[in-house]
Amino acid sequence: MSTGSDQDSGDLHRDDAYELDRKAVAAILYAVDVQDKDQLTQLMEPLHAADIADLLEQINAHDRALLIQLYGREFDGEILTELEESVREEVLPILNPQVLAEAVRDLETDDVVDLVEDLEEPQQEAILEVLEDVDRVAVEQSLSYPENSAGRLMQREVVMAPEHWNVGKTIDFLRETDDLPEQFYHVVLIDPRMKPIGNVTLGKLMGARREVPLVDLQEEVFQIIPADQDEEDVAYAFNQYHLISAPVVDADDRLVGVITIDDAMVVLDEEHEEDILRLAGVGESALSDSVGETSKKRLPWLGVNLFTAICASLVISQFEATISELVSLAILMPIVASMGGNAGTQSLTVAVRALATKDLTGSNVWRVIRRELMVGLLNGLCFATVLGVVGMLWFESAMLGAVIGTALVFNMIIAGFAGTVVPVTLDKMGIDPALASGTFVTTTTDVMGFFIFLGLASKVLL
Amino acid sequence: MSTGSDQDSGDLHRDDAYELDRKAVAAILYAVDVQDKDQLTQLMEPLHAADIADLLEQINAHDRALLIQLYGREFDGEILTELEESVREEVLPILNPQVLAEAVRDLETDDVVDLVEDLEEPQQEAILEVLEDVDRVAVEQSLSYPENSAGRLMQREVVMAPEHWNVGKTIDFLRETDDLPEQFYHVVLIDPRMKPIGNVTLGKLMGARREVPLVDLQEEVFQIIPADQDEEDVAYAFNQYHLISAPVVDADDRLVGVITIDDAMVVLDEEHEEDILRLAGVGESALSDSVGETSKKRLPWLGVNLFTAICASLVISQFEATISELVSLAILMPIVASMGGNAGTQSLTVAVRALATKDLTGSNVWRVIRRELMVGLLNGLCFATVLGVVGMLWFESAMLGAVIGTALVFNMIIAGFAGTVVPVTLDKMGIDPALASGTFVTTTTDVMGFFIFLGLASKVLL
Repeated sequence: MSTGSDQDSGDLHRDDAYELDRKAVAAILYAVDVQDKDQLTQLMEPLHAADIADLLEQINAHDRALLIQLYGREFDGEILTELEESVREEVLPILNPQVLAEAVRDLETDDVVDLVEDLEEPQQEAILEVLEDVDRVAVEQSLSYPENSAGRLMQREVVMAPEHWNVGKTIDFLRETDDLPEQFYHVVLIDPRMKPIGNVTLGKLMGARREVPLVDLQEEVFQIIPADQDEEDVAYAFNQYHLISAPVVDADDRLVGVITIDDAMVVLDEEHEEDILRLAGVGESALSDSVGETSKKRLPWLGVNLFTAICASLVISQFEATISELVSLAILMPIVASMGGNAGTQSLTVAVRALATKDLTGSNVWRVIRRELMVGLLNGLCFATVLGVVGMLWFESAMLGAVIGTALVFNMIIAGFAGTVVPVTLDKMGIDPALASGTFVTTTTDVMGFFIFLGLASKVLL
Repeated sequence: MSTGSDQDSGDLHRDDAYELDRKAVAAILYAVDVQDKDQLTQLMEPLHAADIADLLEQINAHDRALLIQLYGREFDGEILTELEESVREEVLPILNPQVLAEAVRDLETDDVVDLVEDLEEPQQEAILEVLEDVDRVAVEQSLSYPENSAGRLMQREVVMAPEHWNVGKTIDFLRETDDLPEQFYHVVLIDPRMKPIGNVTLGKLMGARREVPLVDLQEEVFQIIPADQDEEDVAYAFNQYHLISAPVVDADDRLVGVITIDDAMVVLDEEHEEDILRLAGVGESALSDSVGETSKKRLPWLGVNLFTAICASLVISQFEATISELVSLAILMPIVASMGGNAGTQSLTVAVRALATKDLTGSNVWRVIRRELMVGLLNGLCFATVLGVVGMLWFESAMLGAVIGTALVFNMIIAGFAGTVVPVTLDKMGIDPALASGTFVTTTTDVMGFFIFLGLASKVLL
């Protein structure tokens, strides 16, 4: 596709390294505008498929369609696999069927799986049809594994050797094999029942004498991935154990494929994106989504928030008489709720992240909860002092200062507690804590914050 | 270190795959308690260094010290590199100096760099002292590159070949070389001035005939990393271009090292952790931090939040007279602020994430802002209807319903605008948008929410 060697490496260490150059984008759009195919092809030539995909995502739908039509046969299957789902769905019908067929036929089967798995039935069918029989069967077999499983992620092409082979025999075998996979890093050792028993890196194979048995060169760290394992756990294993590639086995422990670290890295990146967006109540979303789609995806969390905000208002309404006597309470009450909400968000983000990295477990959950309670108490006391003084000076009432300070301490302890217990409980129940914790925690701190502050005030100040 | 082959692979696809087994942890702590060294060694034997590090992080400081003392000479340098910084600093003084020396001498130089770069001067000195001269020089050279740069991340051991070599000569050279790096995936082609000009994978080398020139086997995708590039950009390049390893060059374009994907994956993971924690105002933090450390790290953001909450209260206080006439305003006003805050958080999270993945650029920023404004308007209208009806029924005032509905629409449009413009502006100014956007955006929505709602109410309802 591209070679970075013609890139000006002196530019790379700027802050916007690897960012699409605004001028280059403008030049490409100009070439599209004047329908200059040669110019367009020349401008696109140095770009990697991933960069072309980014470009297509960043321009508007009209320009995108014109560009793709002008680019014609140059359009590459790899660009399709790099595109975000929503843009991909839009691009597929634009492509000339023949261009699409050629683009797809060039791809490795695991990329085809990646390409078609999120598509609607008819689009999926159309792509599978253009594949050669052997490839189509391979893709359909991969699709038979559950969504987001190791089986969907793996390549089916594996370089393997019987466990009793030596270096010489293996090297001869590799040299005689015509269709080695495009990328591979290990020879997988298998026993007679096809069970993988070890990995030998190509580097070790190169460095060893011909008579050395393969088993003597096995990697120390070796992990076998079951085909039905969640891809999130696969990514975790690669990151935790610094794996480069790992064999995948079926339910009978037979070798069926191999996952490489570049695929695991993509999953790790996607999982992080999911977590960060879910914590903000956004759900799966892309910058290229339309206004309607975006609005629809954000509505549910806002709806939940409206409901909980109304609950908090109901709490306030219980103290209507108190507020009408002392309007300063209405002025100060958002502070208690806001501080609690922020402290709760801090605790819950740490907990959600620690659950994802498997650092928060049954062994230390009580210690973490105790720590959060103590932190809530400490920070609560600290800000209660500040806020107490502010309240006292502003409204010239020492008692009001004491009430808001006390309410703040309690609410921040509650925030620390809820911020840890809520995500841990959701996780135990099999619910993604990133998705739902925020609502529960901020509802708790809002409701409790208003209740304690206004309740205390009505007892003490009236 | 460990072999996963003796693991019961039937267990792997459970939800808690790779999580430390609570029973195993209990058994290890029991062995420590009764000072049974053989039992401890046996229980620890199947664990990978990364898992031992997780274990040490999850138990309390007292048990940690006892365990390390009992484990003695079995303690491995790799465990040190896997530990979180705060725990590592605590573990180093506990280690017997001789055990430490042996542990460190076993490590590759890039791991030593990783180990010492965050340590205080005296601890750093102590570790560098035990290294052999050649290794110490290599480590000190790496440390001369800026923090978080490619130079710190790279291995100095590179397998390279002059560009005019063929396959046969390269293979002979590899077989004759005694100290090939532990892990390598490419042979880097260099020109006579040591400038890297291409990568050849070991798989290609294995599959080709002896007389084929290396240049004919070059990888299509090839990226050169400058030694002073930010490690965040390095991780981006690996993820974007699916690199497995990439040569690192100095300011004169000479090859000085190589970065492999497993190191890039660790950086990607850390960057994500940083983003997610910064968005929540937590800063760098670990589950193993003490109460005092945790409290201190969370104080700054809470302090900023207190300040902005007081600003919002000042806005409310301007309408004291209005509220004392109509207490229902005090009851409803948190809803407007809360909805705006949530909508703003949604927009800003999407923008922060898109800036990190370089999907939000000068080419599409206006389109994204326009989209956010439209989404704010749409969702605002949607919830204004609901909330208007609620306000009307609850307080039996159609005008109050109209006022809160109108305020909500305006605040949600403001949220969409601030949620995009604030992070983009901070990014342009060279400030990490994940760190500071939240405060600015929620302050804006709080202040504007209260102002519009109470302002409108005082004009219309009184």
